[in-house]
Amino acid sequence: MKQSLLFVPTLKEAPKDAEVKSHKLMSRAGLIKQVAAGIYTYLPLGYKVIQNIERIIREELEKIDASELLMPALQPSDLWKESGRWEKYGPELMRLQDRKNRDFCLGPTHEEVIVQVVRDYVNSYKKLPLALYQIQTKFRDEMRPRFGLMRGREFIMKDAYTFSATAEDLDVWYKKFSKTYIDIFKRCGLDTKIVNSDVGQIGGDEADEFMVMSEVGEDSITYCDMCDYAANQEHSGLVEGDPCPVCGAPIKVAKGIEVGNIFKLGTKYSESMNAKFIDSDGSSKPMIMGCYGLGISRTLMASVEQHSTESGILWPKEISPFQIHIVPVNLKDEFQRELSYEIYNNLRGKGIEVLLDDRYERAGVKFKDADLIGIPYRIIVGKDSGEGKIEFINRYTDIKKLINKTDILDYI
Amino acid sequence: MKQSLLFVPTLKEAPKDAEVKSHKLMSRAGLIKQVAAGIYTYLPLGYKVIQNIERIIREELEKIDASELLMPALQPSDLWKESGRWEKYGPELMRLQDRKNRDFCLGPTHEEVIVQVVRDYVNSYKKLPLALYQIQTKFRDEMRPRFGLMRGREFIMKDAYTFSATAEDLDVWYKKFSKTYIDIFKRCGLDTKIVNSDVGQIGGDEADEFMVMSEVGEDSITYCDMCDYAANQEHSGLVEGDPCPVCGAPIKVAKGIEVGNIFKLGTKYSESMNAKFIDSDGSSKPMIMGCYGLGISRTLMASVEQHSTESGILWPKEISPFQIHIVPVNLKDEFQRELSYEIYNNLRGKGIEVLLDDRYERAGVKFKDADLIGIPYRIIVGKDSGEGKIEFINRYTDIKKLINKTDILDYI
Repeated sequence: MKQSLLFVPTLKEAPKDAEVKSHKLMSRAGLIKQVAAGIYTYLPLGYKVIQNIERIIREELEKIDASELLMPALQPSDLWKESGRWEKYGPELMRLQDRKNRDFCLGPTHEEVIVQVVRDYVNSYKKLPLALYQIQTKFRDEMRPRFGLMRGREFIMKDAYTFSATAEDLDVWYKKFSKTYIDIFKRCGLDTKIVNSDVGQIGGDEADEFMVMSEVGEDSITYCDMCDYAANQEHSGLVEGDPCPVCGAPIKVAKGIEVGNIFKLGTKYSESMNAKFIDSDGSSKPMIMGCYGLGISRTLMASVEQHSTESGILWPKEISPFQIHIVPVNLKDEFQRELSYEIYNNLRGKGIEVLLDDRYERAGVKFKDADLIGIPYRIIVGKDSGEGKIEFINRYTDIKKLINKTDILDYI
Repeated sequence: MKQSLLFVPTLKEAPKDAEVKSHKLMSRAGLIKQVAAGIYTYLPLGYKVIQNIERIIREELEKIDASELLMPALQPSDLWKESGRWEKYGPELMRLQDRKNRDFCLGPTHEEVIVQVVRDYVNSYKKLPLALYQIQTKFRDEMRPRFGLMRGREFIMKDAYTFSATAEDLDVWYKKFSKTYIDIFKRCGLDTKIVNSDVGQIGGDEADEFMVMSEVGEDSITYCDMCDYAANQEHSGLVEGDPCPVCGAPIKVAKGIEVGNIFKLGTKYSESMNAKFIDSDGSSKPMIMGCYGLGISRTLMASVEQHSTESGILWPKEISPFQIHIVPVNLKDEFQRELSYEIYNNLRGKGIEVLLDDRYERAGVKFKDADLIGIPYRIIVGKDSGEGKIEFINRYTDIKKLINKTDILDYI
């Protein structure tokens, strides 16, 4: 893609209300633009990263045979009255009326709708288990939207729901999703810790949260680098340096960003909403449910928080909006221009995601933007272009080499 | 994918309120499920078709250098007051208040938001033109939601917006989009006619609609099979058999389903919302805009309407949820089961989208479901499976052949 057409509006200054590094950088690098408090437009470069995260999620969920559907954002109050949440849910639930004064809400989560989908079709244990998920826009009227995409009012989530005939089968799905989440976050460049948590508004029997350790997180987490131990500090009561309950190593304390959560719902929704099946012994039983949330816009934000300095981002390979960034020092120079386009067309022809800075800007402006945008491999086409030579920079290692244009593929 | 896990809840009877063929079939084939009037869940098979249509749109728009972003559904009233539409738009605009009593609407269209995005960054003719699009969920509180996905209250659209420095450049984009739309619809199996139309709620200088001729359409269109002529009947005043104004052939009359519309907005929004740029002569001018809508859920519905009989769908190749449907006559038969899985794994390994009916159902049930679901190529694994022979059916031609399992790829 050519940078002039992609629309990457970089800024020298972050908006005044941007408090944390990721919010500042995402605004300055032209990834997002605020529309109202907690409500954002994903600009082309930011949306490419979102789509990469979505692709990773789809690939990993396909491995565990989860099936994708799409439920609506508008949900009728009837369903929420069946589950009892219409009354219980506070002002975070955005409510509205249609032209005939019927009550609706904008879904912050989709337990009611998925139960309505499944209960009408599934009547026998033979049709269980089922694992269904969607990637969808959610709404939550936060009291205090903040930190950019961290606490937004409109955000993108993957939410999955499983339906099992037995508690043992729910355990199997719960473990599958837990493992899959770790894999997904790893591919997004995030190391996560699993923390046992409250069931909160969702309800149910058991819940775990997936936390990325970060100074901008909202929960205090005690964790260990040597083993999997992690817990909310208020639950564990431990302080920095205490011996770790699992392996004895000293405890660390950090703030955590919650990027995912999974719940054993049990029969909370299937009982209240009458989602039953006939078991092999002929008896009627409520389905046993699990639900599995993953914050996609928040994963983007956490990844920027982890993989950046104050002056720019460096994308983890799998979610980077492009793999290679071609920056000609001076586009008015005929040799540089021709070589830049030649490399650009060659790499695109090979299916490589490549961004060409085709703007007639000063070299300093282009390099500064490139540092900000954070594509991992950079090709600088400069004074040696007459001999077909370019500078290849691996930004992960910061190794720079003057190489021949024919050797580029070997370097990727 | 295995049919038992995909969740394809086929029905013998369509819901009582389903009036038209596509709505009946989409409900019976397990493509959609109603949540409230005009509000649907896309079930896995239906959502796969939606994603295929989206892929085609992205591929075709990339060819004309349009860039994808994602704007929010929640839009603050401030922006709509700037454009003057907050007062003008009727009860079709869904309005709500947040917890601090600030007014918002759910976007039926995104002129205001895209202008807010572009005006803050683009100040010079050097940064024009721009072509931006999104694939997004839209809301319109229809007085009478009906015909399934045809007149829904929550629906999926592609909406694009161009920003030009000159009227001539807008003309160039308008023609590019018009041609691209024809290509997109063709790949979705739809022949469309372009009909000049009213500018309506969107406003602007000129508009065209893309119509699929169908008995369930909502507008009466006079058109010609021999040339490109098409017009709203109330504008043309022509009746069936009149000579066609362009080529002299006899006029036909049919109902039309509107699947796309394009508008030359001109400076309507850029003037009211102060989206200006400095031109090459140093003067300040409002940007000249175009907007281009394409109804994705409606394209799905129109395609089912065109490519089906009362007993089932036959998907156009490029949007079919799967390319091949493997149906074992009797899964309890060891030869049949093993051969079915062998073919399934082979084809998947070659990257072919294949659906395996792995249900222990009677053959009659499976064949009826297969006819309903409408995958274009079918492999029946039956009594000759011991010799590695299967029946290959091309449903477009209805040619059936008994072939060796090793020859399958040649037949696709």
